[in-house]
Amino acid sequence: MIQQELTGDMELKWSRIQKSMQQSGTDGCLLTVDVNLFYVTGQIFNGYFYLPQEGTPFFFVKRPNGLTGENLFYIRKPEQMADIFREKGIKMPEKLLLEGDEIPYNEYIRLQSVFQPKETGNATALLRKMRCIKTPMEIEQFRYSARKHAETYAEIPSCFRLGMTDLEFQNEIERRMRKNGSIGLFRTFGSNMDIYMGSILAGENAENPSPFDFALGGGGMNPSLPIGANGTVLKDGTAVMVDMAGNFSAYMTDMTRVFSVGKLSGLAYKAHQLSLTIQEEIEKISKPGTSCSELYNIAAALVEKEGLSSYFMGTKQQAKFIGHGIGIQINELPVLTPRSKEVLEPNMVFALEPKFVIPGIGAVGIENSFLVTETGLEKLTIFKEEIIELY
Amino acid sequence: MIQQELTGDMELKWSRIQKSMQQSGTDGCLLTVDVNLFYVTGQIFNGYFYLPQEGTPFFFVKRPNGLTGENLFYIRKPEQMADIFREKGIKMPEKLLLEGDEIPYNEYIRLQSVFQPKETGNATALLRKMRCIKTPMEIEQFRYSARKHAETYAEIPSCFRLGMTDLEFQNEIERRMRKNGSIGLFRTFGSNMDIYMGSILAGENAENPSPFDFALGGGGMNPSLPIGANGTVLKDGTAVMVDMAGNFSAYMTDMTRVFSVGKLSGLAYKAHQLSLTIQEEIEKISKPGTSCSELYNIAAALVEKEGLSSYFMGTKQQAKFIGHGIGIQINELPVLTPRSKEVLEPNMVFALEPKFVIPGIGAVGIENSFLVTETGLEKLTIFKEEIIELY
Repeated sequence: MIQQELTGDMELKWSRIQKSMQQSGTDGCLLTVDVNLFYVTGQIFNGYFYLPQEGTPFFFVKRPNGLTGENLFYIRKPEQMADIFREKGIKMPEKLLLEGDEIPYNEYIRLQSVFQPKETGNATALLRKMRCIKTPMEIEQFRYSARKHAETYAEIPSCFRLGMTDLEFQNEIERRMRKNGSIGLFRTFGSNMDIYMGSILAGENAENPSPFDFALGGGGMNPSLPIGANGTVLKDGTAVMVDMAGNFSAYMTDMTRVFSVGKLSGLAYKAHQLSLTIQEEIEKISKPGTSCSELYNIAAALVEKEGLSSYFMGTKQQAKFIGHGIGIQINELPVLTPRSKEVLEPNMVFALEPKFVIPGIGAVGIENSFLVTETGLEKLTIFKEEIIELY
Repeated sequence: MIQQELTGDMELKWSRIQKSMQQSGTDGCLLTVDVNLFYVTGQIFNGYFYLPQEGTPFFFVKRPNGLTGENLFYIRKPEQMADIFREKGIKMPEKLLLEGDEIPYNEYIRLQSVFQPKETGNATALLRKMRCIKTPMEIEQFRYSARKHAETYAEIPSCFRLGMTDLEFQNEIERRMRKNGSIGLFRTFGSNMDIYMGSILAGENAENPSPFDFALGGGGMNPSLPIGANGTVLKDGTAVMVDMAGNFSAYMTDMTRVFSVGKLSGLAYKAHQLSLTIQEEIEKISKPGTSCSELYNIAAALVEKEGLSSYFMGTKQQAKFIGHGIGIQINELPVLTPRSKEVLEPNMVFALEPKFVIPGIGAVGIENSFLVTETGLEKLTIFKEEIIELY
């Protein structure tokens, strides 16, 4: 089941989860959500992964055909897991974790009735906590994505032709992303985070509020997907913010750069410069132990001091965060909000994205992906940060 | 809240849902999943839609800012809905439908405690049943998608260059899809249906089993997305099956055509011809009242008679359906399986996809989207159906 080169990485993850289950007196956890299965097995399958508090995990597979391995059983329905537990003398869990923030109510109820635990707990919360501290192999994949991400951004000026719309510009960037190895699929956590490959925001569209939990909005091209580019013509004096996903491995980097059609207003350059200053200040003070709320509050104070609060993270609707963990999904932990209880820990990877919306011009600012090291931050997404003129 | 040109369509949908609730003695249904919100409001928002058994619906919105309308209330958390019900003298539902197959367990429990109904039922099941009978406005959108879908497929031969891989070919097709107005996002129902824009299957890769519930598999380009193209070189004698989404409106058409690099084996042409025959037979007998299981069984019998069962709908793993409803999501009701209890009804829209995998060659067969009319089927996706030689 587990590919040989992944064995060490998977065992490291299992042992972290088991340690946490031992501390909380949990007997086992059952995972079935695709991103969690990928995290603990290195592949996606239709079925279940059961990890007891101690010992080796069990794999219950519906599809695909042809998988083999220790403790691997093919099933057609979840009820068969209980039969296998009995046959093999596996201890039935009295305290069981299920993915309560991810699997549908009816599926959860069915799994409860299969195992009939005395108590159930939240595997989603545990897995999100585990997943936010990346393993060496995961960090390697971020580095790969970051390199491809930057290579693709270097091709962006060649995508531009005067008179094109934001959607035409985006199509050219998407094409280069795919050519450079983008997997395409953009995974998010939660039910209100739909997006397709990323977002291009230009001109007045940058002010459009969105239903989603992303930093900025945009009207989108269809009411069924109200986010991002909406057909705005990229005319002289427009800021074009490019925030396309770095999904070149299963671990996505997040990176935003601003391009301009000709010159922008003084306010736009001032706000962009302030974003760079915020990033610099945060890079200076961040280290293991720094609280995420402090990072938000430092940014907000700098913005306040410059009198730019009404443009910060939107105008008509303002996001209340300036960064977020990244990984298999784009919105992992921690989140950099005014009231976050989280602190930075070594091997967290997060995106920092102080941004401004300038009415009539577009959005400006910066976003980079950072690794938390033992002593501070390491920037993963290396690419020039000033506003880049498209002609 | 509801755009004027959509009022009639939305009122039609609300009255259908209300009629069903009246019949089952249900007091109201609360919807929050994006595709269901889009179905009943014509837009995506973060919040809730409450439809009582009689009268007008209520809109509880978290985001985006700036929406207005009758019975529209901004909230920050679901508990505020109960306060508003009390303030406005709205009857609290004793029997309430929630989206039990879609919303996470913890969200469902929270909504139950907000409304404290005596009984809850499954809004997912009801909405899927309602959504499978399309309204005139929805059918118009299918017609638009189908037209754009066929236009894009006509450009496919120009995407091909000898020596390219399936991924390079797919990238060129994706580019044309986007240029022709594809929204990009490919929506599926259920947690085991990830895909990016569609699938290209060529050569040996067509045999690779997938964890997902799609008709065919393919290894994919990364273990985090094991479906479709995997880097196969499109060499002489290869069948290239193109099954890319027709998401040119919120209503997706589904359409597959087969292209060949040079000539294929006799078996490949024979199997392809059988797919066309199956389609023809099914077109002949289908009308309102025809059972979906009969359609499957007719296809299976034709395949059996020709001795091609071991290639039908895959080899190493064989799908047990030959068609499925389409709409806002690619896998709606009905499903054409051997034991389906569903019958065709006027204004259902479904994809019919009899396909074969020919070892070493690739996949062949056909897929079209059909509207069920009062008297039979109307094919929506009109484009030549023989195997198209790429050079």
